[in-house]
Amino acid sequence: MARITPRSQDYSEWYLDVIREADLADYASVRGCIVVKPYGWSIYEHMRDFLDCRFKETGHVNAAFPLFIPISFLQKEAQHVEGFSPELAVVTHGGGEKLEEALVVRPTSETIIGYSYAQWIKSYRDLPLLINAWNSVVRWERRTKPFIRTMEFYWQEGHTAHATHEEALEEVMRMLNVYYDHMREDCALPGFRGRKSLHERFAGAISTYSVESMMGDKRSLQSCTSHDLGQNFARAFEIKFLDRDNTEKYCWTTSWGLSWRLLGAVIMVHGDDQGLRLPPKIAPYQVVIVPIYKNDAEKSAVFEVADRLLKELKVAGLRVKLDDREETPGFKFNDWEMRGAPVRVEVGPRDVVNGTVGLARRDKPGKEGKSFVAQAGLAAHIHTLLQDIHASLLAQAEQFLHANVRECNTWEEVKEATEDGWALAPLEDNPAHDEFIRNQLTAKTLNFPIEQPEGEWRCVVSGKTARERALIGKSY
Amino acid sequence: MARITPRSQDYSEWYLDVIREADLADYASVRGCIVVKPYGWSIYEHMRDFLDCRFKETGHVNAAFPLFIPISFLQKEAQHVEGFSPELAVVTHGGGEKLEEALVVRPTSETIIGYSYAQWIKSYRDLPLLINAWNSVVRWERRTKPFIRTMEFYWQEGHTAHATHEEALEEVMRMLNVYYDHMREDCALPGFRGRKSLHERFAGAISTYSVESMMGDKRSLQSCTSHDLGQNFARAFEIKFLDRDNTEKYCWTTSWGLSWRLLGAVIMVHGDDQGLRLPPKIAPYQVVIVPIYKNDAEKSAVFEVADRLLKELKVAGLRVKLDDREETPGFKFNDWEMRGAPVRVEVGPRDVVNGTVGLARRDKPGKEGKSFVAQAGLAAHIHTLLQDIHASLLAQAEQFLHANVRECNTWEEVKEATEDGWALAPLEDNPAHDEFIRNQLTAKTLNFPIEQPEGEWRCVVSGKTARERALIGKSY
Repeated sequence: MARITPRSQDYSEWYLDVIREADLADYASVRGCIVVKPYGWSIYEHMRDFLDCRFKETGHVNAAFPLFIPISFLQKEAQHVEGFSPELAVVTHGGGEKLEEALVVRPTSETIIGYSYAQWIKSYRDLPLLINAWNSVVRWERRTKPFIRTMEFYWQEGHTAHATHEEALEEVMRMLNVYYDHMREDCALPGFRGRKSLHERFAGAISTYSVESMMGDKRSLQSCTSHDLGQNFARAFEIKFLDRDNTEKYCWTTSWGLSWRLLGAVIMVHGDDQGLRLPPKIAPYQVVIVPIYKNDAEKSAVFEVADRLLKELKVAGLRVKLDDREETPGFKFNDWEMRGAPVRVEVGPRDVVNGTVGLARRDKPGKEGKSFVAQAGLAAHIHTLLQDIHASLLAQAEQFLHANVRECNTWEEVKEATEDGWALAPLEDNPAHDEFIRNQLTAKTLNFPIEQPEGEWRCVVSGKTARERALIGKSY
Repeated sequence: MARITPRSQDYSEWYLDVIREADLADYASVRGCIVVKPYGWSIYEHMRDFLDCRFKETGHVNAAFPLFIPISFLQKEAQHVEGFSPELAVVTHGGGEKLEEALVVRPTSETIIGYSYAQWIKSYRDLPLLINAWNSVVRWERRTKPFIRTMEFYWQEGHTAHATHEEALEEVMRMLNVYYDHMREDCALPGFRGRKSLHERFAGAISTYSVESMMGDKRSLQSCTSHDLGQNFARAFEIKFLDRDNTEKYCWTTSWGLSWRLLGAVIMVHGDDQGLRLPPKIAPYQVVIVPIYKNDAEKSAVFEVADRLLKELKVAGLRVKLDDREETPGFKFNDWEMRGAPVRVEVGPRDVVNGTVGLARRDKPGKEGKSFVAQAGLAAHIHTLLQDIHASLLAQAEQFLHANVRECNTWEEVKEATEDGWALAPLEDNPAHDEFIRNQLTAKTLNFPIEQPEGEWRCVVSGKTARERALIGKSY
């Protein structure tokens, strides 16, 4: 049954093996694209629904904007077009004819949405405008990896317009925190919130914030970003409003996005040598019932109990699957471990007699995760258990994260720390330093964490005064 | 306040006016594309969620397939490429380079999904494979109309594979009925289920089924389609399975789709001179509370009641909006009539004293739709009222539909009937007849309804024996 490469042996192979064996995704015929299979898509749908709910709770509404962007739109914001030009997919022909102006398949929608906002926003009464869109975008990537970096990827992009820079900044931080909470509370993923360096900010932004997550190989994944766009796009697209003081002003805009790469993080952070381990809130099935029997008489008695429990757990709001395939229990155990189902319920002939079931939790290996409990009150028991599993996955990931971040004060320390983890080191926010780090360490500046002690240190690169410490590490 | 063209005066202008004034959608910068604004998108989301639920209840799962299709894939099915070639958007450049093989932006995904199914399906145990995808597709249309015909449109496309033709046909009819039920039960839209003529079937299908809906101008909208693809795509993409009898066989596949044009149908069928009338199940707000007051003292008493009712109705599972804008009640009445909110609750100073509210239902004009009811038990009252509104919208649409379909037995009768409605007339299923009808009447063969009396008639075009009657009418 050893279908997958051990995680410790080859992390990258292990990741691809899990994706294949847990039936999450497949390669598409087009280079760099993937097909997300039903089991993988179901996880993504749960993540999406939780996040969408958080957007709506914070006053946002959804809308849909076009897939295509006239190439001249991108050129209106100088930094933006410079950043995205090398990654564009370009439609040159439509309906059998060459187009007068080529269309770009959206790599992100600031420009096309800017065009609409310029028409929709007239007065301060129209502000703030708080819109999100769920869609897919295309960036022509050279090296790809399922979920983490694909040519087409699904994500959401929020785009907001405000009357003042202060309000826009509040929104930028609000959404960064919405992401942070979603990651922790729905996906059991810890991370560091912080500001990207000037060098690493979004093309066209004044500043970009991110959550950096530590994968199992101690490389960072930038899990989401939230951008303060200042008035850059407002000026490029003439997004203006008549303020209370009767003068016309440019809006302040923000954008923020989180993609299916977060599903990649879920796999990489929680998975183990047996496969996926899914946080209960986003698992397609939170509970899988496996019937155990040797003959027809046992089978019918076992299924009577299993069917009843299936109904009871469903009514209690749990996502449950009764695995009634004609396979051995051992096959099913392995299969659902591979697919990461948080809780397995085993029903055998003895359980029928005793009014019990066997429980196995996916987050704890072997005997430690096993118990026998009464059939009566099973749903309530599992509801509590799922909360515990969530907390335990988060705690494991947090422990790993904090064990692998080292406070450094010298370049030598940074060098050593980034060989097998992240450094947290004083750094001036200077593009030249970013390049130096990248060239010297094959690591990069991840972000300047928001939460850090006030103080003054010496920049580990320049030796000059630095008021912030940066996370430095290898990255996806 | 007469912001929109009367429906009877210019139906097409009226439709565009409603879309603009009800804030449903806007034109995009790219020709033929639209931006769906938050209010419009919210309606679409409700429709999508109801339909998605019906898909899941009938055993389907969702997945995601790539946006791009290698152009050679389309060429594998001869009819398919012939049908879609004139409508393709083609990506010729990616990442700054000319592509070796051009990519087509999917106009529909039979081919790209066929490629995956060929790899996923090995044995009869893998069948049936029942997958749906929610996405957008692109067809280079010459003449466009918001929701009804746009270059990029959002839809769902189901793709299934089966071991036998019989099972595939069952699926085709099952999904046709899922659509039919969704239309009636969620959107209050009646229609005729039937088989498209050979001439009108999907490019690559053996047969196509549709629901034809009658718009307010008595033109038909093909609201959805369900295709029996036979083994055409299975042969083109080598989708084969090892059957129980240990022989390798080609699968039988189906596909079925419903797009945001159904939202166009909702507008066209239910709307009136005051704007939208939304079926309660898909309305962003089922209830809008409008407070009525003259001074601050009244305002505070009225808002106390309005706030309490808002909470009560929300808790009862209703989607409610309290309109607290600084506008006159008259403005708000008109605005929510335009936006089609099914029920308006008015709270004035007298209602505060009497423990009542004023109710106005959007489906009935003026006084007929007005009543006063007690605040106590309001939620239950409204729940019943919403059911009644749904039934009344459906009944009105059905009455209109049946009043405008005429049974015909001669060409003269068909000619007359199709000038202002639909004909139901005996017809041989012959592409030459379809063309004759199109040329002579500017109408077309809509479908051959499933439900019709058995019998034998004379084809209204050829005079030969015909065993079916076809719906013939003008169409979008």
